[in-house]
Amino acid sequence: MTAASPTSKALVSRVTLGELATGQALTAPVYTFKGCDADNGTDKKAGSHSGANRGDNCGNSRAAASVYIQANVHGAEVQGNAVIYQLMTLLEDYTVLGDIHCVPLANPLGINQKSGEFTLGRFDPITGVNWNREYYEHAAIVADIPKWFESNKQLSDAELFSAFRQRLLTSCQERLNNSWGISTGHQLAVTLQSMAHEADIVLDLHTGPKSAKHLYCPEYDIESARFFSIPFSLIIPNEFGGAMDEAAFYPWWQLQQYCAAQGREFSVPVAAFTLELASQERIDMADAKEDALGILAYLSHRGVIKEKVQPAEMPRWGCFLANYKKFHATKAGLVEYCAEVGKPLAAGEPLVTLLRLDQYGSKQALEPVSLPCDCVPVLHFASASVHQGTELYKVMTEVFEL
Amino acid sequence: MTAASPTSKALVSRVTLGELATGQALTAPVYTFKGCDADNGTDKKAGSHSGANRGDNCGNSRAAASVYIQANVHGAEVQGNAVIYQLMTLLEDYTVLGDIHCVPLANPLGINQKSGEFTLGRFDPITGVNWNREYYEHAAIVADIPKWFESNKQLSDAELFSAFRQRLLTSCQERLNNSWGISTGHQLAVTLQSMAHEADIVLDLHTGPKSAKHLYCPEYDIESARFFSIPFSLIIPNEFGGAMDEAAFYPWWQLQQYCAAQGREFSVPVAAFTLELASQERIDMADAKEDALGILAYLSHRGVIKEKVQPAEMPRWGCFLANYKKFHATKAGLVEYCAEVGKPLAAGEPLVTLLRLDQYGSKQALEPVSLPCDCVPVLHFASASVHQGTELYKVMTEVFEL
Amino acid sequence: MTAASPTSKALVSRVTLGELATGQALTAPVYTFKGCDADNGTDKKAGSHSGANRGDNCGNSRAAASVYIQANVHGAEVQGNAVIYQLMTLLEDYTVLGDIHCVPLANPLGINQKSGEFTLGRFDPITGVNWNREYYEHAAIVADIPKWFESNKQLSDAELFSAFRQRLLTSCQERLNNSWGISTGHQLAVTLQSMAHEADIVLDLHTGPKSAKHLYCPEYDIESARFFSIPFSLIIPNEFGGAMDEAAFYPWWQLQQYCAAQGREFSVPVAAFTLELASQERIDMADAKEDALGILAYLSHRGVIKEKVQPAEMPRWGCFLANYKKFHATKAGLVEYCAEVGKPLAAGEPLVTLLRLDQYGSKQALEPVSLPCDCVPVLHFASASVHQGTELYKVMTEVFEL
Amino acid sequence: MTAASPTSKALVSRVTLGELATGQALTAPVYTFKGCDADNGTDKKAGSHSGANRGDNCGNSRAAASVYIQANVHGAEVQGNAVIYQLMTLLEDYTVLGDIHCVPLANPLGINQKSGEFTLGRFDPITGVNWNREYYEHAAIVADIPKWFESNKQLSDAELFSAFRQRLLTSCQERLNNSWGISTGHQLAVTLQSMAHEADIVLDLHTGPKSAKHLYCPEYDIESARFFSIPFSLIIPNEFGGAMDEAAFYPWWQLQQYCAAQGREFSVPVAAFTLELASQERIDMADAKEDALGILAYLSHRGVIKEKVQPAEMPRWGCFLANYKKFHATKAGLVEYCAEVGKPLAAGEPLVTLLRLDQYGSKQALEPVSLPCDCVPVLHFASASVHQGTELYKVMTEVFEL
Repeated sequence: MTAASPTSKALVSRVTLGELATGQALTAPVYTFKGCDADNGTDKKAGSHSGANRGDNCGNSRAAASVYIQANVHGAEVQGNAVIYQLMTLLEDYTVLGDIHCVPLANPLGINQKSGEFTLGRFDPITGVNWNREYYEHAAIVADIPKWFESNKQLSDAELFSAFRQRLLTSCQERLNNSWGISTGHQLAVTLQSMAHEADIVLDLHTGPKSAKHLYCPEYDIESARFFSIPFSLIIPNEFGGAMDEAAFYPWWQLQQYCAAQGREFSVPVAAFTLELASQERIDMADAKEDALGILAYLSHRGVIKEKVQPAEMPRWGCFLANYKKFHATKAGLVEYCAEVGKPLAAGEPLVTLLRLDQYGSKQALEPVSLPCDCVPVLHFASASVHQGTELYKVMTEVFEL
Repeated sequence: MTAASPTSKALVSRVTLGELATGQALTAPVYTFKGCDADNGTDKKAGSHSGANRGDNCGNSRAAASVYIQANVHGAEVQGNAVIYQLMTLLEDYTVLGDIHCVPLANPLGINQKSGEFTLGRFDPITGVNWNREYYEHAAIVADIPKWFESNKQLSDAELFSAFRQRLLTSCQERLNNSWGISTGHQLAVTLQSMAHEADIVLDLHTGPKSAKHLYCPEYDIESARFFSIPFSLIIPNEFGGAMDEAAFYPWWQLQQYCAAQGREFSVPVAAFTLELASQERIDMADAKEDALGILAYLSHRGVIKEKVQPAEMPRWGCFLANYKKFHATKAGLVEYCAEVGKPLAAGEPLVTLLRLDQYGSKQALEPVSLPCDCVPVLHFASASVHQGTELYKVMTEVFEL
Repeated sequence: MTAASPTSKALVSRVTLGELATGQALTAPVYTFKGCDADNGTDKKAGSHSGANRGDNCGNSRAAASVYIQANVHGAEVQGNAVIYQLMTLLEDYTVLGDIHCVPLANPLGINQKSGEFTLGRFDPITGVNWNREYYEHAAIVADIPKWFESNKQLSDAELFSAFRQRLLTSCQERLNNSWGISTGHQLAVTLQSMAHEADIVLDLHTGPKSAKHLYCPEYDIESARFFSIPFSLIIPNEFGGAMDEAAFYPWWQLQQYCAAQGREFSVPVAAFTLELASQERIDMADAKEDALGILAYLSHRGVIKEKVQPAEMPRWGCFLANYKKFHATKAGLVEYCAEVGKPLAAGEPLVTLLRLDQYGSKQALEPVSLPCDCVPVLHFASASVHQGTELYKVMTEVFEL
Repeated sequence: MTAASPTSKALVSRVTLGELATGQALTAPVYTFKGCDADNGTDKKAGSHSGANRGDNCGNSRAAASVYIQANVHGAEVQGNAVIYQLMTLLEDYTVLGDIHCVPLANPLGINQKSGEFTLGRFDPITGVNWNREYYEHAAIVADIPKWFESNKQLSDAELFSAFRQRLLTSCQERLNNSWGISTGHQLAVTLQSMAHEADIVLDLHTGPKSAKHLYCPEYDIESARFFSIPFSLIIPNEFGGAMDEAAFYPWWQLQQYCAAQGREFSVPVAAFTLELASQERIDMADAKEDALGILAYLSHRGVIKEKVQPAEMPRWGCFLANYKKFHATKAGLVEYCAEVGKPLAAGEPLVTLLRLDQYGSKQALEPVSLPCDCVPVLHFASASVHQGTELYKVMTEVFEL
């Protein structure tokens, strides 16, 4: 790790995520803002400390939470990089108390993979596996929690968390060192996950195809949704489905649940969210600043920066995952997307108009398609022509104010 | 050919354009509005005539020009279909004097070829050949014009054109029947071209990636540019480069040039244009109606419909192809497209902002890119991340009012 | 359904599996050999019976098992079609007792999807979902077996199976008619699955990338492995993982298990196998005949044809799925595949040679890669260059003679 | 440039060919064997000389020809890398008189671009442009030869060639520095071309899809075809079509022609060949050694190495490009490739068998396809299923012994 520049607080290094057929390493930049001592508020420049220990400058005050932020695991979802850029630029002027690690451009293979004029970055082009379903479940560790807790219950909370964290890290390393190899996507994911497991707060920046901003927020952490500059939150079960946010919080939530059942009470030690920052294939620096400020407000709330940053005032809405519905095209054709994302749509109002030139002369040539219930369309397909069965829209139903 | 429906004037058939690996035929719909007698203005319904002869109901009045319109030869460029839909819907209420053949969805292989969430429809996925560079040059016919004209100069203009047209059609058929086969793209193109050669007016409906509306207009026909609802016209040389419009007008322009040099004067008998109707992956029915009205204005001017339809009042600008410049990304990175298409941009104003997260801390991390001369950006790349060398923008320079 | 031809016993129809963006239906051919009366051995030509009822010509003898065979669900895996061709040709000369339904070219979207010179047919090009992981689990039906059996235990075995089969079919239909639509891949899979559920024997014909022939055989049906012309069998758990074979047998195996636990004994009523018939992107008619004869031997054993057909004499080997190992490239590079598929390989023998031109001059430039245990390589990657993490080989370990 | 290793004569550097969206440089390794003094035959190790000047150790003896060899410009055509590896390994034991520059892995973007299990490396995935049609024609230089020669005819041959070479190099640099940028493929090609222009002998190593070895040899240099280990030679016109070999020899051939017409006689100073080394997606180290020996035989003949290396004894056949025929599939379907590449095929013998499962019951279900003339099939399509119009085979007709 070296300083990003004489004028930046960030330390820069690169993480190796794989290797291409030509032998070139797949790497991503890692920018670290080291947390300083909260009490004296010293704003340390890069290079003034070793970088070896987390929070080593915070004296005997309790260490602030550390943060891991990544962007662009799906290759076409570039806006998170702009948000990281704006966030880092803002952080230069704030007092950073907890370490903040930023990994933009986190999936170089996905980002660099074009097919025609667009980025084919949602899945491994060889296997079809979604890059964001390759994280590691730590199923053995989770299954072993009762036994492990029994042997470690004498530890303080801090010690317990540290020991549990170490298990996750070791498990990731074993996975990566598997003598039979591991898949390209799994290697990428578990390498990133290793970095994420070091942190107390994990933010994974994505976008939808054509999308309103929305947050994936686990049920246990619903209160956090009001800090981000994001109007819609999807409340997801505290379960593992393969994504980074779930990989980060799930073992901890299991630990917390088990311990609570044993009478040992503490909050889930790790917070993890996926932020969907509008549409893919789009860079908007001004909008990125708004989302950077939302993240800053959350970090401020969590004490990662010393200064108070207020969340943006805006209505915020929630929806449980079970009420988040996919509408697949029941007919193929050309599509005029009528329903705007992020705007409520009444039952029966036109979602799309479907154009079928092969049926000119009949009423099937141009037909509105609507849904049988009120909803808020959150995202829609990126292309204007669809096969039957294409996921046309995702909509929130049974929306409630947060 | 059968009637599209009891309420439509259009006759419908399908043209076969190829065959897929599974054995299924690649076909496109063909809608024909038969021209009626201009003098009595009879508005004939489909089925009331044989369809075998062009203009057979126009008595001894001179036959009106016939028209061929196709859309969607590039798979992602769907808006032309919407324009054809609106045009056909309008035509139901007009008096059609010359035959009008509409071929929407003209490249089923390209339209149905998805790669990720977008349509990979600009080139043959097997060979990489641009679907709109596969038309047939008729080089032998063009080279033979002097000899052929010598043997046919006694013919009247109408007879001369008819004989020349027949040569083009025969040449296409020979091409299609080549005993060694012809390529997939060439088969598609030459089959469409055969239909186009039957017409006096050929309109090929395309779009750019992210684009302002613009017209490809041959130099000899610059006067026609003021009828379409299109603000920008690219004035192209009267040459062959592989595209449909060129394939349609080029042999006729060569014939006209040669005959003029021999003292036989007539106008170029065939008009052909490529209309670029804004952006790909977009269906907008209201905007499609405006473009349908622009086409109708041109057809009205050419006497294809009986009624007078005035062109939209709008400023229209031209640019010679030599002044139409491509700007290729000189650096790779993430791109915020700053310059709006269709809006003049002064030299030195930001075209894009280039974001390079790997260079955070340096001034290369976020840099504006500008051009050294005034221009009108006409289209830009569809994706927000680019390799070095990606065609970022096409801009018109030395723009003049038409 | 009509007769395939005057000289064929097969009835032909087409099944609709989806609809492309252009509006064209995705369909596959279905060839049906109707089972005739076993006792009088009448060899009925197509058209001599109604086709409405299964086994309607078999008098009061017990109906023979019915069969469903499909091929080419993965687009590049074409050899199964050749096997179906050879099988149908053979069946013309045999006495068919149970209905046999053949669906070659079962995934037209996958088969027709080229990318460069190869077929990109393993997963949906839009979503990345493997076409052979989209079958329906019937989780609700399986969960409901105890209650359902309680209400139906008075039924005879035949009645019980018929009622259970009807539940599966109804469940598929409900899935297909979901008012929110279903995904393209799921529609394809469940439509095929509906046809498969009608049969007692389900054969899904696949290939590997570069592969030796091998059979996926469920544990409960291991005895069947010795009929096919296939030297290697992978013995898979009686579980559901998304593939056709599992979708076909899993609910029945669950039913059988539950009933057995309740003291009601019967064999699993449905047999289902996936046959991996060597390599993709390959048609070999002579080899296809050998596999057709192997299938015929199994059908003969099961009484689907009247004549006795002996299985090919060959050594046959088994391996439990847990011992079927994937080796992922631990380094990227160019690959010379040294280990032949289907041939035992001793521990330490070269599996591949890895060529790294970027490291010329060091010993890493050309290195053998081997495995730490004896194995039989069953398949390897199709391309000669690999990223780190590419699945290079699948090998059987702990192989035993069947 | 540094030494590849203490035990290798090769100097190693990397050439930058572009930049990916993530900011990572596209580079390829360059290995240089410096020519030593032919008279004393000193076999110099890397590091024993500066590397700054060509032939600086050859005293006052005439400098030996220099060589440029590249491989893998088409991403799937990897075998050329193996040939370069074997050639370099051989060169370690020979006395190298002229500089030899080897650029394996010359198109990292193409090599690393997978689509499904294969490498999609024949064309730019964004534009569809064939990577081997992007070289620069130097049209202005060629057009200017008469004027330029008039001003330079007083120069000696060596001076003339040096000055002309410098013009080509300057022209490439101007191209690369175009202020409007140049396309990704053109940048790659012209950068490689710059290196090639420095050499007297240019070898571009390719493969076919499924192919017999064949050589592209310009008419003026037909005598050279008997040195390579390649049985078939395609004799191409001395023209420019966009490929590397043509780009390398074409301006020199034009110069030679013009000068000869002016009475100034010399041989074409640059030799350039494309070697098609069997099939793509294949590494075969033993076969690579045979081709390396063939190249060595040619280099020996040209005096690039001191030792005599005899060409392999084998029959060698030629065919003029005009007699090299493409056969495009006249029907779609599944394909059994019957005709072996490199083996003569009589008129009427089966080229392929076409399987059409949708036509089972008719004679179209399985049909042989043959050609009307004797030929030698040289390559065939890589996939076993084809759309109508797919280029199925390329065959040599009118083959003659070289």
